[in-house]
This record gives sequence, structure tokens and C-alpha cells, in this order.
Amino acid sequence: MTIGLAVIGAGYWGPNLVRNAMATPELRLEWLCDLDEGRARTVLGRYTTVRPTASYEQVLQDPAVDAVAIATPARTHFDLVRAALDAGKHVLVEKPLTPTHAEGVKLVALAEERGRVLMLDHTFCYTPVVRRIRDLISTGELGDVQFVDSVRINLGLVQPDVDVLWDLAPHDLSILDFVLPGGLDPVAVAAHAADPIGAGRPCLAYLTLWLRSGVLAHVHVNWLSPTKIRTTVIGGSRRTIVWDDVNPAQRLAVYDRGVDLASAGADERRAALISYRTGDVVVPALPEREALRGVMGEFAAAITEGRAPLTDGRSGLRVLALLEAAGRSIHNDGRRIDLGDIFDV
Amino acid sequence: MTIGLAVIGAGYWGPNLVRNAMATPELRLEWLCDLDEGRARTVLGRYTTVRPTASYEQVLQDPAVDAVAIATPARTHFDLVRAALDAGKHVLVEKPLTPTHAEGVKLVALAEERGRVLMLDHTFCYTPVVRRIRDLISTGELGDVQFVDSVRINLGLVQPDVDVLWDLAPHDLSILDFVLPGGLDPVAVAAHAADPIGAGRPCLAYLTLWLRSGVLAHVHVNWLSPTKIRTTVIGGSRRTIVWDDVNPAQRLAVYDRGVDLASAGADERRAALISYRTGDVVVPALPEREALRGVMGEFAAAITEGRAPLTDGRSGLRVLALLEAAGRSIHNDGRRIDLGDIFDV
Amino acid sequence: MTIGLAVIGAGYWGPNLVRNAMATPELRLEWLCDLDEGRARTVLGRYTTVRPTASYEQVLQDPAVDAVAIATPARTHFDLVRAALDAGKHVLVEKPLTPTHAEGVKLVALAEERGRVLMLDHTFCYTPVVRRIRDLISTGELGDVQFVDSVRINLGLVQPDVDVLWDLAPHDLSILDFVLPGGLDPVAVAAHAADPIGAGRPCLAYLTLWLRSGVLAHVHVNWLSPTKIRTTVIGGSRRTIVWDDVNPAQRLAVYDRGVDLASAGADERRAALISYRTGDVVVPALPEREALRGVMGEFAAAITEGRAPLTDGRSGLRVLALLEAAGRSIHNDGRRIDLGDIFDV
Amino acid sequence: MTIGLAVIGAGYWGPNLVRNAMATPELRLEWLCDLDEGRARTVLGRYTTVRPTASYEQVLQDPAVDAVAIATPARTHFDLVRAALDAGKHVLVEKPLTPTHAEGVKLVALAEERGRVLMLDHTFCYTPVVRRIRDLISTGELGDVQFVDSVRINLGLVQPDVDVLWDLAPHDLSILDFVLPGGLDPVAVAAHAADPIGAGRPCLAYLTLWLRSGVLAHVHVNWLSPTKIRTTVIGGSRRTIVWDDVNPAQRLAVYDRGVDLASAGADERRAALISYRTGDVVVPALPEREALRGVMGEFAAAITEGRAPLTDGRSGLRVLALLEAAGRSIHNDGRRIDLGDIFDV
Repeated sequence: MTIGLAVIGAGYWGPNLVRNAMATPELRLEWLCDLDEGRARTVLGRYTTVRPTASYEQVLQDPAVDAVAIATPARTHFDLVRAALDAGKHVLVEKPLTPTHAEGVKLVALAEERGRVLMLDHTFCYTPVVRRIRDLISTGELGDVQFVDSVRINLGLVQPDVDVLWDLAPHDLSILDFVLPGGLDPVAVAAHAADPIGAGRPCLAYLTLWLRSGVLAHVHVNWLSPTKIRTTVIGGSRRTIVWDDVNPAQRLAVYDRGVDLASAGADERRAALISYRTGDVVVPALPEREALRGVMGEFAAAITEGRAPLTDGRSGLRVLALLEAAGRSIHNDGRRIDLGDIFDV
Repeated sequence: MTIGLAVIGAGYWGPNLVRNAMATPELRLEWLCDLDEGRARTVLGRYTTVRPTASYEQVLQDPAVDAVAIATPARTHFDLVRAALDAGKHVLVEKPLTPTHAEGVKLVALAEERGRVLMLDHTFCYTPVVRRIRDLISTGELGDVQFVDSVRINLGLVQPDVDVLWDLAPHDLSILDFVLPGGLDPVAVAAHAADPIGAGRPCLAYLTLWLRSGVLAHVHVNWLSPTKIRTTVIGGSRRTIVWDDVNPAQRLAVYDRGVDLASAGADERRAALISYRTGDVVVPALPEREALRGVMGEFAAAITEGRAPLTDGRSGLRVLALLEAAGRSIHNDGRRIDLGDIFDV
Repeated sequence: MTIGLAVIGAGYWGPNLVRNAMATPELRLEWLCDLDEGRARTVLGRYTTVRPTASYEQVLQDPAVDAVAIATPARTHFDLVRAALDAGKHVLVEKPLTPTHAEGVKLVALAEERGRVLMLDHTFCYTPVVRRIRDLISTGELGDVQFVDSVRINLGLVQPDVDVLWDLAPHDLSILDFVLPGGLDPVAVAAHAADPIGAGRPCLAYLTLWLRSGVLAHVHVNWLSPTKIRTTVIGGSRRTIVWDDVNPAQRLAVYDRGVDLASAGADERRAALISYRTGDVVVPALPEREALRGVMGEFAAAITEGRAPLTDGRSGLRVLALLEAAGRSIHNDGRRIDLGDIFDV
Repeated sequence: MTIGLAVIGAGYWGPNLVRNAMATPELRLEWLCDLDEGRARTVLGRYTTVRPTASYEQVLQDPAVDAVAIATPARTHFDLVRAALDAGKHVLVEKPLTPTHAEGVKLVALAEERGRVLMLDHTFCYTPVVRRIRDLISTGELGDVQFVDSVRINLGLVQPDVDVLWDLAPHDLSILDFVLPGGLDPVAVAAHAADPIGAGRPCLAYLTLWLRSGVLAHVHVNWLSPTKIRTTVIGGSRRTIVWDDVNPAQRLAVYDRGVDLASAGADERRAALISYRTGDVVVPALPEREALRGVMGEFAAAITEGRAPLTDGRSGLRVLALLEAAGRSIHNDGRRIDLGDIFDV
């Protein structure tokens, strides 16, 4: 019994969903839907048995369709997801879930009401490297997390409807939500942003998160960088991780290097108590596996098993809450925004 | 006619001053002074004609000494510099000039009163790469500066008397002061910092500067990073510079890559006006030259010519003003601190 | 009028041919043929209109098939290519053309007799970087070629029917044949090889070519290297190229660095005449384009225009002549093998 | 009781010997001798108590001088070393020991006759990384050595009296002699070389060594390369080492990656027996220590303890035997030269 799927949106990301859906045995791709049916036809190519269509209605009315995977602009997500859930379909949707946290809350509630899977395509959470990072933290190999620094910059497409934070930071936020023990649990956030080219929205931004554990996490996103950097450092009391995603030969490195403090002493005696670890570096062997394949597998499994997927609607809401708070910070001179209970959906 | 010099402080940096002073023909090294005379003797070695001493007084009273180069902890700078100026000596001093802006102001005033050179050892300003960056900006090759991002992290010595911002950020700030047209001219600053190991002072910090030109500049400093990164990116409207100081084979790269906006149009038409430059990268040939040699040469030249050095006391004050404001921001939840006229010394 | 194509072989490389053939408008993919029809079916997937078959005969008898693209083990090439040409089909074939030079000569003659295109899939010749290298040399920007050094090593599959030279060196040889002015024109060759794991055939080898121009070219291939290196250096009298194919951010770099000799003088005076250029490095912008797309386009164009393709059968023969001579050298203690006229097919 | 030392030669390398001798407590630097006394004076600087001289005779007659360290052109080594040994001095000499093997043999014999230390400055053998490599091999962690590949290329000074092999390959050969179990023990050698700029001597060369163990070792040296590469790969049956000396952040990496053959089976069944290890990489922490300091310490210790140094005259002879054989190969079209017993001095 395979799950009938339609992919919605034949733009930048849609073709990847199509390709990976076709390679997932548990799924049966029925439609590729795009307002521009010609674009859908082009993506499918000349040799396909998958049908293109411009009619979302037709897709939702097709009883062979059990689920949809939505890769359209963010501003269309609310209506498309709601219609799909109302039609009884399971939904996989690109990040961000919706342009506002309030809309996202409604969709999560609707999915629960309808008993349908609502899953976010937080692709990175399905990569071997992120899985390994989560393991390194959860097994205690890293010790206590001490700091997080993530840089995600390159010469990127200036998006027409979202700023750089909404475009890129969901990756970092969903990854942290996935790997940190207990998930991402910030008490406050601040963001500084700029639009030096006059694009009408921030093209570069810095995001600081104060986590409940006391950890400071920082994210740098930038569409204007001539070089591509995808580096996340997670400092721990026993080891520190450097994940460099543009270096396939050494994507992950675990450093036994750091600063230790024997114990808290009187101020003048502290220097004597500080010691430096400068041990080996280990580069773990990781399988090379396309992350989207894992996304598709998890989506199918969640549907089949009637359970919440790893990256469920609530993980999408946590990302939205942070993005909204970051936006408020930007509009208030970079002020620290206390998250209070908005984060506890 | 050579200039008689004494180096004060035989700790981490002093030996470099000694070695470069000895290699500068215009200087004549007379003394190496340290509270621990044995340490001074060890630094000088067994084959030297330079005299060690533990007496700063003796140095200042020596008429053969025209100038002192001070490489002692920051908290001692004010007294040592004042005494030297009072004794009629020219002064080269390590950054930061003093632990407070107010003290720095006094020293600058005193130096002017005494007609003596007061120079900051902003070493990086004397490297071939920083000279070239200044040229690339001043000649218009970069176009308008659009953003600045600087990362200076490594497994660093946790300093006993200064935090990571005071230890590392003076490099970035003095460099920006040197290369930006008209110098570093911020209107506000914010800083976020953390001390995850309980060292008693920030061990990692993020500093955001809003410049009068509208440019956002960001500095990341960290003592706990297992990897050493020294990268400064200066984005321009025509070219973007990436300076990677730990890569001697490609220290500086000039990218003809970026995003252009034809003109400010109505919002929905903007996307059509955005274009992407993806041109060549040029790695300029740069001489390999020890920066401290340039520092010594400039110090000697400023003394001889009776003029202000490139990195004079006022450049030190601008750095101090920013560090103080950053400290206030840290103590106020990362609040943006307007600099007002504190910066116009 | 599209060209009907069958892909033969659904192993390692076949799927790439299938995918690129499907994306080439001038081609019309009819069949994927493999002795194991199930494997062909798996490669095509569940959504295809392309037919799998285990019968090569059926393919050759199909009048809708104008051409075949062969990606089977080398030992099968002679029979498969001959049968295709005899059936009046155009042929694109993986390297090496055949296991012996003599067989290759027969196929080239047969193709000419039948008036059919016989093209080698020398994939790298269709990459933007190799095109640019050819331009840099042909326009004189490099000056005279002075030396060539090519390294192609990684942890590779130990092939069941060919050694490491036959597996990897065809890439280097076909590239040199493509970029050097007048093609690859060696007068002698020597090779040293080893099989340290007891695989039954060389797993690492060093190949030296003495070119008619006096240039020494060297190729290092290795299946046992834990790191992947794909670097070709072409030294010229004016510039030197470094092509690092595993570094997408800087695949090609053109160095204005080298040693110049003013003129040939008496031996003791030579030192004075030597000078060193240490100029800039330029990293040209290159499009990212899948090379196999270019292969397919050239195959289609050669068929349509009734002309020899860029990498025709004769280019395949030059590679074979060198591989055979290298084999003779290995079996003769690494002796230099003069190529005489064997190379002039 | 310190050992009185004179450094002979104030050219490229002499200053490094001077600096490290001065920092070695067991040594007492008495003289720096150069035909050009002014050059010696410049190297010593204005603040020294060490005496410059142009008279080698004066140095040898000075009873305070127990040992000399010779850093002059290779063609002068024989006379200088012989005179020093005749005068009863211990000798540290730059590589190559002498321009011919025969001369080297005489010096080794003379040193033994006189009971003096004759040590080669094979600097790399005293680096932490080479020590670690020797340990990794001797402890069996690498397993059996399977292949060696060493690349030492950069834009180098075209030497006036030696070719690129004599200039650079002694490093690789002395390192292999130091790290391989039982030392470097080749049965044959071949070399290919070229002089594409008309310098009058080879500027690039490839050297192949067939070791008695069956291992193939290969060395690539080149003065004309625009990039600096210093990489040595030592493949083992259990691990493989990659030593990248221009990457201080990761100088040494130990790869658990390779190809294993279960056992020697019939040819057609071999493929099934091949397996691939793709395990972790470990980057061992290594101290940063100047190698020449270790050279000086070993020289002093060998003198004091009346024993042969780690890199004694015989290690120098093994290097000379190989360089001479390589030269014969170059002059014989790259023919393999059997070393017979010339190598067993």
C-alpha cells in the first residue's frame, strides 16, 4: 500500500521533492501542480507518467492523493495547507510554515483536529551530519553545551517576499531545535539587520538567542557574501564540534580543545585554575545520503504509523515565534525581546 | 642620529618589540625593563649588549633614552605612559591605551602638552594586507562600503585583567578606523557577550556598530573556539574583499561578485531590477613583511619628523570609546548605545 | 526531428547517460538495455515511458534507434560497438574505446566505412573549466607550455577488468589531448606501477610522457589514497594554471608566478639572469554546467551535421596507444618506450 | 660545561643556525664565519657579543671552538668538513653532505678515525610531526607500509650549483630513512627530470624508488610550481598518513580508510574479496616546536655522550647514493638503476 502524493510548486525546490518522492518506495507520485502548468510539464520532462496540472482543486479532489508536499512561496502556505487539511490530506510544507505565528497556530490546531500529519521540511535535520551532532550531544560526549555560533552566508537570491532571516535562519533554528537537549528553548532574542543595496528588506542579519540554559547562540545570515560559508560551531565543556557543510571531505570535526576552569575561586586566583585542552581532532566517517530522501521516508512513516513526524508543526511554530520576535527586535533598534510564554505553544 | 629606545615589559609581546627594535636602523635599543629583571635577562639572552633592568625610574632618568615602547598589562599603562611623557620621552604603547576612556583622554592631552609622540601599537595597520585594503577602498575600486563582518576567534589565553572584547576587538576596531574613508565613525553600538566557563569575564562577544554612513559593521571575538579564524569581509558596491589572515597563500581576495539593484522601483517590480554579478576573483600579490617592523619605522619617523604617527593617541581613544560603550551595552541586556559626541574627542 | 537513442549498460555510469539524454532536446531516449533487465528497470524507475530491455539485438533492430550510448565494461566494447556500427547506428562509447589499440583501429575504420559517428565519452573535455584551459593556452595567455603535472587519486573502486592506469589515466590523457596545441604528441612514455594489496593488477601508477615539444608531462593515478585529489598544473612561460577539481569555489586559478631566464648565457652568469615573477592570481568565473549535457549535445550535433565530434574515435586511439605503451613500460622495469609512429594512426 | 660552537656561512640558512645555537643552553656560540665578514656582521646585528670573522683558519685554531656548524654551498663542504675534522672539531653540516658519494665516504671514515661527531642537518627529522610518523609506523598502528608518495614543490630559488633533486629531495629521502622500519632500503631507482626554462640544470624531477620490502616510493620536486605543496602520504595496511606541512591547523591526519583484500583467491573471485574501509580520521595534537632547536640539542647531546647522532654521516651517505643513482637514471633516459651494494656503505 503506497501513499499517493502530489507535489505543489514547480519552482526552485519542487523538482527536488519530485525526484526524491519518485525514489521513495512508500510514496506514489500522482501529480505535479503549478499555476504555470507548462513549468510543471517541463520539470517532469518528456518521459514521465506523472501528470502535470495547474488545478490545486483537481489535486485535492483526487481520492488517489493521500498527501501533498508544498513548495510554493511562503505567503501562499496558509491557504494551501488549510485547503489540503480540510480535504483530508497529509501535508509536508517548506519552511517557513506561514508568514505569521498566528496563522501557523491555526494550521497546527487544524491538523490535530483533522488527525492529519503536518510536517515541516526542515531538510537539514535529516542529514547524517545533524543526526551525528545530536548523538554527540545527547550521549554527553560534548559535555554541557557552552555556546553556539552559526554562519550561513553566500551570494543568495534576494527573495521577493521574505527577508534574509526568514529565508535562511529557519535552517539554523530548526537544526538547533533538533540537536539541543530538550529542543531550542530561548528566553530572549535580539537581531540586527541591514539592507545596504536597497532591496526593500534585510539582506544581512545577526541574530542572538539567550537560551534558558544560559547559553548564548548566535546566527549570521547574509545574501550578499561573495563566498559561501555554512559553518556551525557548538562548544561543549568536553568537546567542541565544527560543522563545515561546504567541505565534504571534512564536514564534521570534533575537537578535544578548550578552556577548563578547575573551580570558581577568588578572582585573583582564577588564572592559576584555568587550563587549556589541546588534544586530538576526530573527523567521524559519515555516510553520504541525500537529506530529502530522509524527509520523504519520515513523512511516509509518520502517515503510516499515525504519529507526529520528527519535524512536526510545533517545530515549525517554534521557528516562527523566533522569527517574529527577531523582526520585532529589528524594528526596535535591536532591542532584546523577552519571549515569555509566546514560545510555549 | 639614532633614537634611544627602552622596551618596557618582557612578557608575551615584549620580545617581539625587542627583536624588531634591534632590526630597525633608526632605533638604538638601550634597555629591556621588567619588574622581574631575570625575565628581561632571559629574553635578551646570553649574547646581547642590551641591558636588562627592573627599574623604570632608571630608564626614564637615562638621557640616552629618547623613547619607550610599553608592553605591560593594560592596567599599568596610565601610570607608565604618564611618567614617560613627564620625563620627556616619546611613547609607543600596546592596545588598549588605558582601561578607561577618561584616562586615555588625559594621556593624549599630556602628550600634546609635552610635544611628544604618543603612538598606539595597532600592529595590523602596518601589514601589507591592511595597506592594500585601505588602497582598494580609497581608490574607489570597492565602490561604496556596504557591510563589514569581522571574525577573530581561536583558543586564546583567558586574560587576567581584560575581557575578550578588550583583548581582541581593538584589532578589528583599529583596522576599520584605518581603512574606512574618514575613519571609523559609528553612531551607535550594541554588544552581546557570555562567560560560559565561569572565567569571571566575557570569553566570547558579538559587537554591532551602526556607522554614520548607514553601514552595519559586526565583530565576533571568542577565546573558546577550537579553530583559529581571522577573517574580515568588506562588502562594496563594486567589489567585495575577503581577508583571511590565517591563509598565507591567499590572504586577500577581491571578488567581483555581488547583488546590484538597478534603481529603486515600486516594491513588486524590484525583483526584476535585481541582478547578480558573478565575475572573477583576484588574489593580489602582497609582500611578506613583519608588521612590527613597520610599527617601529613609523614610530621612529614620527619622532624624527615631529609629526603624529598614523596610529596616534586619538585612534586609541576612538577604540576606547567603543569598548566602553560596548561594555555599557553588555551590562544593559545588549541595548543599543548611542554614541552621541563621546566619540568626537 | 529528434535522434532516437538507446543507452546500453545500467551499471555505474549508465544512469548518468540516461538522465542527461532525457534532458537533451535533440535526443529521444528509446531504450535502456542491460543484460540484467531488472537493473535497467530499477534505473528507469516507476514513472518512466522509456523501455527497459535485456536484448541488445532488439535495440539494434529497432528503426527508431539512430544511435547507442555504451556504458558497459571495457572488454565488451569491441563487440557491442562493431554490432552497432554494422547495424548503421551512431555510437557514443565510454573510455577506454577497447582493451587493445588494434581493436580500436578496426572500429575507427569501420565507423568511417559506414559513415557513422564514433564518439568517445571523454567527459571532462566538455566541462567549462577544460574549455577555459584550452582557451588560455590557445590564445597565448599561458605562453609556451613548460610542464604538466596531473594527480588523480582517491579511494577508488578496484576495477575487475582494468588496472588503475586504464581506469583513471584516460581522463588525463584525453584532457591533455584536448587542451595542448596540436593535441597530445608524445615521443616516449614510461610508467611505474605497484599493486601493494595483491589485487592482481596495478592499483597505483606514475606515468611520464616526453612530448615532441620537449615538455615533460606526468600523471599520478591511485586507487588507494584516502584523500581525493584531482589537480592538474600546466606551467607556462607567461602564466601557470592550477586546476583543482574538488574545490568548486576555486576550480581554476591562473598564476602570474614563475621563473624567467633573461637569455641563455654562460653558466656562471646564469644566476644573475634569473628573475622571479610573483604577481597576482586570477580565479576566473566559470559557469556550473554538467559536462555530460555537453557530451550529449556534441553527439547529437555531430550526427545532425554529419561531422566528426570533438572527441572522435581517433582521440580514443591516441589514448589507447599511450595506455598500451605504458603497460609495456611497466612490464619492462619502467623502461622508456619510444612511441615511434604507433601514435600516428 | 658548554660546547663552543662556530657557525660557518651567513647566507640563507646560517642565520637560523645562529639563532637556534644561541637559544641552546648546552652550546656557546663563539663565531659566525663568512668569506664576506660584513655579511656575518649584518647577520649578528648591532647588539651581539658573538664575533664575526672571515677567517675559517682562525676559527679552527681557536681552542674555545669545539664544534662547527656548516651552512655553505655544497661544493665547499668537502674541504670545510675535512679541515674541521682534522682540527679535531665536531661537525654539523647542511645537506647534501658532499657533491659526490665518494667524497662523503671519505669524510665519514675521517670522522670515525678522528673520533668526532659528523652530523647531518636533516632538519625535518627533528620536527614533532616526523617523530610522530615514525612512532605511528614503528608501533604498528599503520600496519605494513604499502606505498609512499611525497610532493615538495613551490616557486623556489634556482640554485647556482645543484639541481632540484639535490636541493629538495634530500628532505624526502632523509625523512623516509628516518621513519621507515629499518631505514630507507631501496634496490633500484629511476628519475625523470626537465629544465624547461633553460636554467642549465633540472628544475623539476620525479624520483621512483623500489624498496626491498616491495614498496614503491615516489618523490616529486619542482622549483617552478606557483603553489607551495609539501605533502607526504604513507599508505599502510591498517591506516594511511597524510602529512600536509603547509597546513599548521592539520599538519598530520591519520585515515582509517583503505582497500582490504580478504585473501589471495582465484582471479575471478577477487572482486568479491575486496572491501573498503571508510572510517574516521584522527588529527593528532602536536606540539609546535622549531625543528632546528632539536637539531642543536641532538648535536650537543651526541658530542657530550660520545655517540652517533640520529642523523649521522651514514644517513647522509644513503641520501648521496640515491641522488647519484638518480642522476645516472636521468642521464640514461630514465632507466631503472639497480643499486646493488653501493647503498650498503
